Amino acid sequence: RRDDLDAFVELHIEQGRLLEEGGYHLGVVETITGLRHLRVHVTGRQDHAGTTPMDLRRDALAGAAEMIARLTKAAAAMGRPAVATAGMIAAQPGAINIVPRAAQFTVDTRHPDPARRRALVAEIEGILQEVAARRGLGLQVEQLADHEPTPMAPAIRQVLAAAADAEGLRWLALPSGAGHDSQILAPHVPTALLFVPSRDGRSHCPEEFTPVEQIVPGLRVLARALH
Amino acid sequence: RRDDLDAFVELHIEQGRLLEEGGYHLGVVETITGLRHLRVHVTGRQDHAGTTPMDLRRDALAGAAEMIARLTKAAAAMGRPAVATAGMIAAQPGAINIVPRAAQFTVDTRHPDPARRRALVAEIEGILQEVAARRGLGLQVEQLADHEPTPMAPAIRQVLAAAADAEGLRWLALPSGAGHDSQILAPHVPTALLFVPSRDGRSHCPEEFTPVEQIVPGLRVLARALH
Repeated sequence: RRDDLDAFVELHIEQGRLLEEGGYHLGVVETITGLRHLRVHVTGRQDHAGTTPMDLRRDALAGAAEMIARLTKAAAAMGRPAVATAGMIAAQPGAINIVPRAAQFTVDTRHPDPARRRALVAEIEGILQEVAARRGLGLQVEQLADHEPTPMAPAIRQVLAAAADAEGLRWLALPSGAGHDSQILAPHVPTALLFVPSRDGRSHCPEEFTPVEQIVPGLRVLARALH
Repeated sequence: RRDDLDAFVELHIEQGRLLEEGGYHLGVVETITGLRHLRVHVTGRQDHAGTTPMDLRRDALAGAAEMIARLTKAAAAMGRPAVATAGMIAAQPGAINIVPRAAQFTVDTRHPDPARRRALVAEIEGILQEVAARRGLGLQVEQLADHEPTPMAPAIRQVLAAAADAEGLRWLALPSGAGHDSQILAPHVPTALLFVPSRDGRSHCPEEFTPVEQIVPGLRVLARALH
């Protein structure tokens, strides 16, 4: 256990498009978003795709599809920055002419406001339950991760903002929709997180890029703030 | 090319539940269903699941999920014996915290009435187009199979029905929702198809079963009809 740290400051790419869209040089993060990661297991009944009437089916993949369509719609309806994503999916046995007996998918849902995050998670879990019950499907919801939102230290944010002003740069106070090292350090030591823009807001893809001209302002402000 | 065949008669399990539910010993098939098999390729844009607002996404799997939910609902709304099934699905890159850039799924859709089959296929292909256009997704629909419904020969069906009556058995005239050898032979020689019941209507699964006591009536009627 170290006791020689007074503060932790992280410089990172935004991985989003708020800075670029608003024409800002830098972002000073207010809060790192909270998230819940789920793996959802849906079980139905394997049947012949030609001879089993629609009204007698317990189709695990049709149920999973309705769940994904509705939970992504629920996050969109809550408005920015609420998000929900199904990133992985599989169905068994996986044949064109067989009604799937089982399907699994993941859910990644996030909101930086603790109460809104709880409301979004509750709405999504309600959708899973409702669809499974109505369709006669088995449901198992495995929780893979659950993080409360992590606020950044106001005193360090103020130092970063003052340094950006002194450099004559335009900066935006914003939440981080991605997870960062800072959220691990924040419970132990005053912590803050500084963003430089991401081209087209792209991330988690090969197009992720920030040109050096947009990184240098971040380095200047970091150096001045540390000084 | 053979010219020594006067007729083709096939005995098969029903693979459905109409005979069992109605308490029939046998089924005399009127028509083998028509089907279309599709592989649907949906392309979107790979993005960070935490930082990309819902309203800026082109999420391939969320689009595929809406397509599957709606096309299965459309088949259900048309009523028996219309069916539509998504049996296989995949998404790329397949990570919990990444918005999928691509998704693929199969569609198996069937109806024994030629006009209703065309209407169902058109409705499903319309759903695919509408969802892709609204969500800004790329769409490629690959046709894997397309069979018109195949009517069985009325003269042979009559012989089977008369043989069942002579054996004192209850029989039902019904369409076949599954494909059969008979649909390959029917264009070449008068062809008919006789069903025995399937336990719980289950098929394409390990529970598929017909006890010998329910097979023997089919053998008796087949023998009498051939004679």
